[in-house]
Amino acid sequence: MSASTFALGLDFGTGSVRALIVDTHTGEEAAVGTADYPTGDHGVITDPGNLELARQHPDDWTHGLVQATQEALRRAHGHRDFANDRLIGIGVDATGSTPLPVDRTNTPLASRDDFRHDLAAQAWLWKDHTAHAEASEITAQAQHRGLPYLHKCGGTYSSEWLWSKVLHCERHHPHVAMSAFAWLEACDWIPSWLCGQHEPGKVVRSICAAAHKAMYHPAWGGLPDPAFLRELHPGLVRVRERFHGPALASNQRAGTLRRDLASALGLPELPIAVGLLDAHAGAVGSGCAPGTLVKILGTSTCDCMVLPMDRALPDIPGVCGIAPESIVPGMWGIEAGQSAVGDIFQWFVHKIAPRSVPEGEAAHAALSEAAARLLPGASGLLALDWHNGNRCVLVDPRLTGLVLGLTLATTPAELYRAWIEATAFGARTILDRLAESDVGIDRIVTCGGVAEKNPLLMQIYADVCERPLLAARSPQACALGAAIFGAVVGGAHPDVLTAQRAMTSVKPTTWTPQPAAVAVYRRLHAAYRLVHDAFGTAGARDLSGVMKDLLALRDAQRQA
Amino acid sequence: MSASTFALGLDFGTGSVRALIVDTHTGEEAAVGTADYPTGDHGVITDPGNLELARQHPDDWTHGLVQATQEALRRAHGHRDFANDRLIGIGVDATGSTPLPVDRTNTPLASRDDFRHDLAAQAWLWKDHTAHAEASEITAQAQHRGLPYLHKCGGTYSSEWLWSKVLHCERHHPHVAMSAFAWLEACDWIPSWLCGQHEPGKVVRSICAAAHKAMYHPAWGGLPDPAFLRELHPGLVRVRERFHGPALASNQRAGTLRRDLASALGLPELPIAVGLLDAHAGAVGSGCAPGTLVKILGTSTCDCMVLPMDRALPDIPGVCGIAPESIVPGMWGIEAGQSAVGDIFQWFVHKIAPRSVPEGEAAHAALSEAAARLLPGASGLLALDWHNGNRCVLVDPRLTGLVLGLTLATTPAELYRAWIEATAFGARTILDRLAESDVGIDRIVTCGGVAEKNPLLMQIYADVCERPLLAARSPQACALGAAIFGAVVGGAHPDVLTAQRAMTSVKPTTWTPQPAAVAVYRRLHAAYRLVHDAFGTAGARDLSGVMKDLLALRDAQRQA
Repeated sequence: MSASTFALGLDFGTGSVRALIVDTHTGEEAAVGTADYPTGDHGVITDPGNLELARQHPDDWTHGLVQATQEALRRAHGHRDFANDRLIGIGVDATGSTPLPVDRTNTPLASRDDFRHDLAAQAWLWKDHTAHAEASEITAQAQHRGLPYLHKCGGTYSSEWLWSKVLHCERHHPHVAMSAFAWLEACDWIPSWLCGQHEPGKVVRSICAAAHKAMYHPAWGGLPDPAFLRELHPGLVRVRERFHGPALASNQRAGTLRRDLASALGLPELPIAVGLLDAHAGAVGSGCAPGTLVKILGTSTCDCMVLPMDRALPDIPGVCGIAPESIVPGMWGIEAGQSAVGDIFQWFVHKIAPRSVPEGEAAHAALSEAAARLLPGASGLLALDWHNGNRCVLVDPRLTGLVLGLTLATTPAELYRAWIEATAFGARTILDRLAESDVGIDRIVTCGGVAEKNPLLMQIYADVCERPLLAARSPQACALGAAIFGAVVGGAHPDVLTAQRAMTSVKPTTWTPQPAAVAVYRRLHAAYRLVHDAFGTAGARDLSGVMKDLLALRDAQRQA
Repeated sequence: MSASTFALGLDFGTGSVRALIVDTHTGEEAAVGTADYPTGDHGVITDPGNLELARQHPDDWTHGLVQATQEALRRAHGHRDFANDRLIGIGVDATGSTPLPVDRTNTPLASRDDFRHDLAAQAWLWKDHTAHAEASEITAQAQHRGLPYLHKCGGTYSSEWLWSKVLHCERHHPHVAMSAFAWLEACDWIPSWLCGQHEPGKVVRSICAAAHKAMYHPAWGGLPDPAFLRELHPGLVRVRERFHGPALASNQRAGTLRRDLASALGLPELPIAVGLLDAHAGAVGSGCAPGTLVKILGTSTCDCMVLPMDRALPDIPGVCGIAPESIVPGMWGIEAGQSAVGDIFQWFVHKIAPRSVPEGEAAHAALSEAAARLLPGASGLLALDWHNGNRCVLVDPRLTGLVLGLTLATTPAELYRAWIEATAFGARTILDRLAESDVGIDRIVTCGGVAEKNPLLMQIYADVCERPLLAARSPQACALGAAIFGAVVGGAHPDVLTAQRAMTSVKPTTWTPQPAAVAVYRRLHAAYRLVHDAFGTAGARDLSGVMKDLLALRDAQRQA
């Protein structure tokens, strides 16, 4: 048996970076290091005057990755087989679309003294919705011109994505737009920084980010046509010119760890995989393969599937993206998602902060425990999980959260359960849409912080979705996914599916739908669909029975 | 100048009884005593298995009134002109419809050992909604038979009212129904207890309670026809037979303070006025007269108006009641209201209880202060104040509270303001309905705890309703109203309007609509009406623009 080799996965989340060292043959996690971002509110720069703004400072990434990697290496030395020279490759994932403007030396504008405190010069975090007007404009333009660019991204361009953000910057912050030599996604810029790439035009672009966020598709030769972009704003053409294609899948190398950094970390000059989106990495780290839907449950959620590329794909309306070679190279990658899930629970616990539950993170356990004692439907509540807009299937950031069924007896635990149920109905809406499109879902594997911590949520999701749920073995599936790409570019495995079979698995527990709960949730789901369609889609709907139906169900459940 | 005389007003609220001693010529309040009810949750007996249940123990009233009266008398002795023998009469108001079953000695069943802990044998508090099915049945029956009984109570019989509750008791608690010799309203039973009346058949009935809650009207000769009641349940005919009419206005005597009680309290055998509903007493204590609408703002609200009886009255759909001689004897009494106002703020502060605000009652001041710093519309929130159903103009207890516009940035102060605004829109809906019916509103006077304590609420109501608001001088308008009736039966004034002119006035402050806020609230009101009608009335409505309109208004206000 040959000596163990290891890969390093670097996972750049919304609030922190995680460095994971993994045995490339067993998937055993030798060590992990993390670093929280110091800037703003847990890494997120906000603006009290503009609630849609969410930015991030790129220095948080570079400082954090060094710190987290050093910590992981230190800890890995306790592992029997590990040594720094057993590391064979690095994979990188990051949130997205999180584009940042860089100058001609590939230095982020935000890292320069002249732009350090300029909000428009920061990285525009995935959940920044300042560009909703521009998103609508891009959608209208593509529809008006009869162009196919939206066919692969659910029919509507999102305010969360590259071109909306760049267009908003061109319009409202021309001093930044004019100083930006190029715009790079976080998952492209971070590998380029690791490799010491000083020419933005030569930065290797990830197919995941390009295809899912920038309307890049081989069917129309890459990025959208310059004429289309020029009509939106001439500045977009410049941004297009600095995009060096073709975009690559993450089983390819972005480059090699630059010497000074390798030396500082005490590492070889390791190969670095092309970056990818954090959700896609989580999917890979959870065993995403044909037939397996992976749900990454975190602050928001992402649903990932892959399909063999010999299948012709239907366009699936309202599903965020379908792209060749994203997620798993060599396959179609399909991505859907919900724009707020864990974020809603966090908002309730930290912003509304009911006094009856303990402070901080213990609140979730206390509320879940109390909510678990309630029967489905027994609160009379129904909620919409649109606190951060609706990503799928409505693709509309200008929607908001709702709760009805409130009475003078409504408790925090009932509301907490209603938020969980709302996100479960959101999950089911996506599943139903995928199922209608006949993509073939044999099993569902969840991963991410929320899935780790909340068995009540898992059971409610199983009951609402009427499917068994599994959970990925690794508590850090995104970092594991990144490490899998590191293992592939390091030569430990010939391809990603082979690497996944060796390095991923699921936990022994299966959450199975409970018939009694399923029956109740079918009734609640009917009410949910009515309210969902009433507020989220055009047309008149009769809602006069909704509150009465919920009260009737509540009374029946309380007497049960 | 003759020596001062005084009247005693006894005001039986939901959680406590208040005894107020008032100078009958100046309205000066010489002393007040209060007693909280000890039973249940602040006097309200609830059932965790049935959230619609709200009962009260009649012993809380009798023990409380002695205690509160003794306290008031003790304190009044500090007043320069007061002496016990200067008291000339007693008035009594109570919540309603709050009926209780009594035996043939006029003893409440709940005061007997064999029924003391039987929920069905307690007083059924005004906000008890267990009888919603029976209310619908009564409405349907009256409509089906083409009977006029609902013409004077908004077209729909309420679950809060006498016949619904008695019918529910007959159906579900026959052991109590069979043991009840009669059912009396709290505002009838309490005066009968004060007078020592031991024959239920001889208890004087209040026109306020009978007409507004029991479909009593001279136009059809009193209570509904026995045939109508028999069809609902034969037991109702028995209840009708023990109702000793005619029901009287509160400028009439119910009797004289019984000797043992007079002696225990050290009082003369004073005349006691016929009882009335607490809201009607509050209206009288706030100067309710032709052209003056009084809004009693408390846990719920009641809107009261009076009109000369030489006017023929239109039926006003969705307004709870129109009755001869209720409120002010000799006039038409019109009553509308909202089933939860202060209760919603209390629920938010005590049940949801955001940690960021101080505990207990100080929370209201803190939240109001924070909410007052927000501009109208700047939260993007819109709420429906239906946490306890909708009394007017939908007359439907099977509706629930709603809030939409939630985002991850929504704060407790924003929600608190949204609840205030929701109740303000509810108030406006009633005003609009009254205005359509051309009853003539020249001024609006508010009274009650909420109006006393919350200037933000007063300003929002003025802005939303687009009318100036005044506040009654007395912080205990209901008890003052009861005392006015005590003064009239004691002979200090020939009639109630004369007594009011002497004994009531308004505070110097006027809350005036602010044009900038009015403009924003008109937009919010349009959204409110749409959501109100969508959930509260039959028919299909297009709600797809609501959330977007609110976000557009929010963004405009935040940039203002």
